[in-house]
Amino acid sequence: ELQMITMPYENLIQPGDNPDLTKERKTASFNLWKMHCFVHEGEEVVKRRKEILEFVQSTHEFDDPVPAEFLSREEVVDRGARKAVVMTNKADAIDTSDFFGEGMYYQSLVIGRDLHSMSLHYIMFMPTIQGQSDDDQMDEWMAPTAARAFLGTFAQTELGHGSNLTKLEATATYDPKTEEFVLHTPTLTATKWWPGGLGKSCNVAVVMAQLYTNGECKGPHPFFVPLRDPDTHMPLKGVTLGDIGPKFGINGSDNGFLIFDHYRIPRRNMFMRFSKVLPDGTYVAPPHAKLGFGTMVFVRSIMIKDQSTQLGAAAVIAIRYSAVRRQGEINEGAGEVQVIDYRTQQFRLLPQLARAFAFLFAAYEIKTLYMSVTEQIGTGNVDLLPELHAVSSGLKAVVSWETAQGIEQLRLACGGHGYSRASAFPDIYTYAVGGCTYEGENIVMLLQVARFLMKCAKEVRIGNPKLANIGEYIARNDSGKARIRSWKQVTDEDIIHDFEAVARRMIFASYDRLKSCENAMTKKEAWNKCSIDLCKTARMHVKLYLIKVFLRRVATCDDAACKKVMHTLATLYAFDLISGASGYFMKGGFMSEQQLELVQSDLYEILEVLRPESVALADSWDMSDLELKSVLGRRDGNVYPALLEWAKKSQLNRTEVLPTFEKYLGPMMKEERSHL
Amino acid sequence: ELQMITMPYENLIQPGDNPDLTKERKTASFNLWKMHCFVHEGEEVVKRRKEILEFVQSTHEFDDPVPAEFLSREEVVDRGARKAVVMTNKADAIDTSDFFGEGMYYQSLVIGRDLHSMSLHYIMFMPTIQGQSDDDQMDEWMAPTAARAFLGTFAQTELGHGSNLTKLEATATYDPKTEEFVLHTPTLTATKWWPGGLGKSCNVAVVMAQLYTNGECKGPHPFFVPLRDPDTHMPLKGVTLGDIGPKFGINGSDNGFLIFDHYRIPRRNMFMRFSKVLPDGTYVAPPHAKLGFGTMVFVRSIMIKDQSTQLGAAAVIAIRYSAVRRQGEINEGAGEVQVIDYRTQQFRLLPQLARAFAFLFAAYEIKTLYMSVTEQIGTGNVDLLPELHAVSSGLKAVVSWETAQGIEQLRLACGGHGYSRASAFPDIYTYAVGGCTYEGENIVMLLQVARFLMKCAKEVRIGNPKLANIGEYIARNDSGKARIRSWKQVTDEDIIHDFEAVARRMIFASYDRLKSCENAMTKKEAWNKCSIDLCKTARMHVKLYLIKVFLRRVATCDDAACKKVMHTLATLYAFDLISGASGYFMKGGFMSEQQLELVQSDLYEILEVLRPESVALADSWDMSDLELKSVLGRRDGNVYPALLEWAKKSQLNRTEVLPTFEKYLGPMMKEERSHL
Repeated sequence: ELQMITMPYENLIQPGDNPDLTKERKTASFNLWKMHCFVHEGEEVVKRRKEILEFVQSTHEFDDPVPAEFLSREEVVDRGARKAVVMTNKADAIDTSDFFGEGMYYQSLVIGRDLHSMSLHYIMFMPTIQGQSDDDQMDEWMAPTAARAFLGTFAQTELGHGSNLTKLEATATYDPKTEEFVLHTPTLTATKWWPGGLGKSCNVAVVMAQLYTNGECKGPHPFFVPLRDPDTHMPLKGVTLGDIGPKFGINGSDNGFLIFDHYRIPRRNMFMRFSKVLPDGTYVAPPHAKLGFGTMVFVRSIMIKDQSTQLGAAAVIAIRYSAVRRQGEINEGAGEVQVIDYRTQQFRLLPQLARAFAFLFAAYEIKTLYMSVTEQIGTGNVDLLPELHAVSSGLKAVVSWETAQGIEQLRLACGGHGYSRASAFPDIYTYAVGGCTYEGENIVMLLQVARFLMKCAKEVRIGNPKLANIGEYIARNDSGKARIRSWKQVTDEDIIHDFEAVARRMIFASYDRLKSCENAMTKKEAWNKCSIDLCKTARMHVKLYLIKVFLRRVATCDDAACKKVMHTLATLYAFDLISGASGYFMKGGFMSEQQLELVQSDLYEILEVLRPESVALADSWDMSDLELKSVLGRRDGNVYPALLEWAKKSQLNRTEVLPTFEKYLGPMMKEERSHL
Repeated sequence: ELQMITMPYENLIQPGDNPDLTKERKTASFNLWKMHCFVHEGEEVVKRRKEILEFVQSTHEFDDPVPAEFLSREEVVDRGARKAVVMTNKADAIDTSDFFGEGMYYQSLVIGRDLHSMSLHYIMFMPTIQGQSDDDQMDEWMAPTAARAFLGTFAQTELGHGSNLTKLEATATYDPKTEEFVLHTPTLTATKWWPGGLGKSCNVAVVMAQLYTNGECKGPHPFFVPLRDPDTHMPLKGVTLGDIGPKFGINGSDNGFLIFDHYRIPRRNMFMRFSKVLPDGTYVAPPHAKLGFGTMVFVRSIMIKDQSTQLGAAAVIAIRYSAVRRQGEINEGAGEVQVIDYRTQQFRLLPQLARAFAFLFAAYEIKTLYMSVTEQIGTGNVDLLPELHAVSSGLKAVVSWETAQGIEQLRLACGGHGYSRASAFPDIYTYAVGGCTYEGENIVMLLQVARFLMKCAKEVRIGNPKLANIGEYIARNDSGKARIRSWKQVTDEDIIHDFEAVARRMIFASYDRLKSCENAMTKKEAWNKCSIDLCKTARMHVKLYLIKVFLRRVATCDDAACKKVMHTLATLYAFDLISGASGYFMKGGFMSEQQLELVQSDLYEILEVLRPESVALADSWDMSDLELKSVLGRRDGNVYPALLEWAKKSQLNRTEVLPTFEKYLGPMMKEERSHL
């Protein structure tokens, strides 16, 4: 069965395909099956992707009678709920323990670029049950949660409060007389706001609220809170709920608001794995301050994989369409060229493709790191935790922002058709760009990285640095001069050396500026004053990480042809980063103008070298039409007939004449005609 | 009546307002009325804005029972048609000859950030009637067009053909036997695609088609083409029409497709002001090759004003919200601060605000230039035409791209709430970003600027430059060193000098590279090879233009306080541009590292200086709540109650329990409960 695609391109090249696309697929220098295995971490994964794809394609309960882009918000929510139930009914189709791999893929095939009524139940509610319940609570809540006997969400963010958890306003006041907590949102800004599925779908929630007992506030704690009647689904007395309205994207999710009016829950509905409140109201503090940290890192590795997949999809669509689209002539009389022949177009496409791979490999890396750190923690070693935290926060910020920007660049590279929802770009963008905000606002994230870096710098200055992997370079000596050379001669070590040097210089420059500011004001004020530079420094540190990971991953590739082209792509990524940050590389004479000019001209040369590999590199992602959901990015390249077919499904085409004619336009024109 | 707002802030500060916002309004150093007059080019304009606003507010036929963001696509289209008819019925409310000023403003208040069924009738159909008809055609078509006895659109772009007009595929073949043209779309890719209002609203169109007569192709020409029956609105025989489906934004417009099957129109339906086809089929060529050029420039000045207004609106919303939103502490225990107190937040907001003003002033400039060039052309002088063309193309590209990026930066600066459509950001973005693609794809535009610049460079090199205003600096000698100084000492001339020098160096570097490439390949291939650098060069030229215009406009301000703060804002704009292009400024040792570091640290200092002016600078745009349509950007700052009120209107909140419960989620949970 797998023979089919071990023959290079057999599946991807079929009779009736757009001939330009077929031609492109034949110019690649590498075997596509081997590249799939490299990109997706092994043959087994690629085989499983194929099985899952076939399962979803052959399960007609997953079919959409009308594509989601033609539906109203109500219909999108309805579709999501319908499909989510079927999807979870049939969860046996996948290895549910592997959410990073099979779970995300399965969901992306079934639902597409959206969340649904049950997303938060799995992403946040269930992990909280698992992580925060004591043994008795586990016995009570875990089975029905896993079985979907109720649907939960996670309610933390408030109308007036986001990143700063300590200032949440919702309260849970313990009443020892009845042994209950009284949940209350004392102000309008305390209204819970944003939780996915909260508005209309869920009937329970984990609610974060300031715990008051015996007159003292003990800070925010999680509670298990029933919200709706299990039979009628009506909100319980004291609970006011609703949808927060339409958003930029992700409108299949009924993100909700939640108001409590002195709403009572039993004492044992407080999650008691760590903190407790005894029947008499005595508060028992948790043994360790910071827990559940690992889960957050894992969620970020999932986010980074998701983001890289969205940027990858955008690159696949734009590259395929650029091979199909013909416009303008390069040499007069030679006919219109494929737009991918334009150097400017290559420059819009290929660095983004490289970036998408860089992000994907970083996601793998973070996931692996997370697993090994979890193992270390088991042996009592927590040394790597702060670094892991720093790198995952930083990646989250850099990846989500560059993904968003990259998707739009790729969309614009497709001209007018990129603006149509037929292209899928609008849905990819609005879905992906949410990642800049949720799971930690990006500037806040970068400043957390900066805090870690300033701590490293301080250790180096004090002379006793204990920096592990990710921060180790900060302590290293600087050779003073950039080593970058022509892309055919430059080594991975040269590239890493230069990025390390620049990142290190920025770290110490920020550190010195911060220290000098601290002489004139409070530490917090100095931090605020230096924060723009601190963010820039953090970004460079993250870019260094990304380029390191990319090069390291390529070095492990065991197929020579795949390795070669991937290495060229990694070099393009590095050269593009240098070119975009040339001011930092030139500073202090670190990189000479000659070197920078070489980087620039080599960058263009690499574009030329990669030109014939472009479509096959896009194909390397192994994205089916079902996953892409894009008329422009179709495997067969038959874009134009498909665009017309798609357009005919438009809501407005259900009748030849719209009611607007009879109501407004017709009478107006008739009246005016009668006057002439 | 105007006394009301000559008293500073009286209208903007009202009882019950958010106190933080009121506080901010009181810290401004300038008189708001005077600033309104400066920003909007005089007292008369500001008065008229007030009158138009009051007219729209008091005309209840313009009211929306439900805000547009809660409507389905069909409902949005219906709303647009309804309001467009009322708006044009009541066109007496404005000076319709002033579309740049009153027309755009009126429409933005009535319709918001969308187009409607009649947009293209006015923007493109009517100007074509005026510009392309001969006298008899004028008599026949102009009156019913102006009266709206039919509704027209402009059909040029095809499914497979955009920017390259010469390759359009639709044909108009003259049949001398019947004295008719036969319109035909011989291939699928010849299908007309994109024209606004074409799908369902319009019943006539200007159609661009390749004219064939006596067996010869005479290139693309415009035709007046009836499409639908005036009474029944059904498509005429031989015409197939429809909507092209949902888009990223602008969904109130029924952009359409159009297929002709040997569809006949009379000979005189060819626009004959310039070219003609005689009854026997003889083709009479136009006297001049390039006409109607000025209109294009005028459309671009409108576009640039529209874009600057969208970026301005985004800045107003983000700045007001950043003054209202409190989050995190700078000094511990001092309470949560307004997020605008964070340096990183100021850096996200203020350079974008400055950019919006720069774009607005450039729009004024281009409009004025257009008028004076039109006057010159009247006297037979066309010297300025190529430069005017170059600067308007370049502005279109730079302004639309930076506007799009800026809006997203500002949206992200508002955290989660920026993602809600309540913020208006999603609608601002999807509306504005269309400008990167329509009216000329941005890269194509930049390459047109580059072509002009290379011509200038050639003239300089040859030694006989005839460069007028906009290109004059290219011939000037280079002093070799940057003059930039601390922002308190630097003069406008210093700033312009440095930008000119950098732009000039980039121009000649590009020129030399191009010439050297031309030795090894065809001119067209060399152009393609150098095109990335050519685009970068064009962008710098445009930025120089923007900074010049900004400084020049500020110099004309006759109020000292307004002038001072606006000059600081212009300096921020310049310093931010330098900082973002530091590699170019450092090249060849032009700007020293010390100078660049000064630019950087001054930039942060300017942010601090402008901090207390921020809200008043936002208020300077004179944008009413009706124009902003944003819960986050409300004049009164009472964001949180308004968010809740807005959310309650959500489509999903019409019933307490959605059908999804009864259909999918309820049965699933009930079933699972029964098993436990």
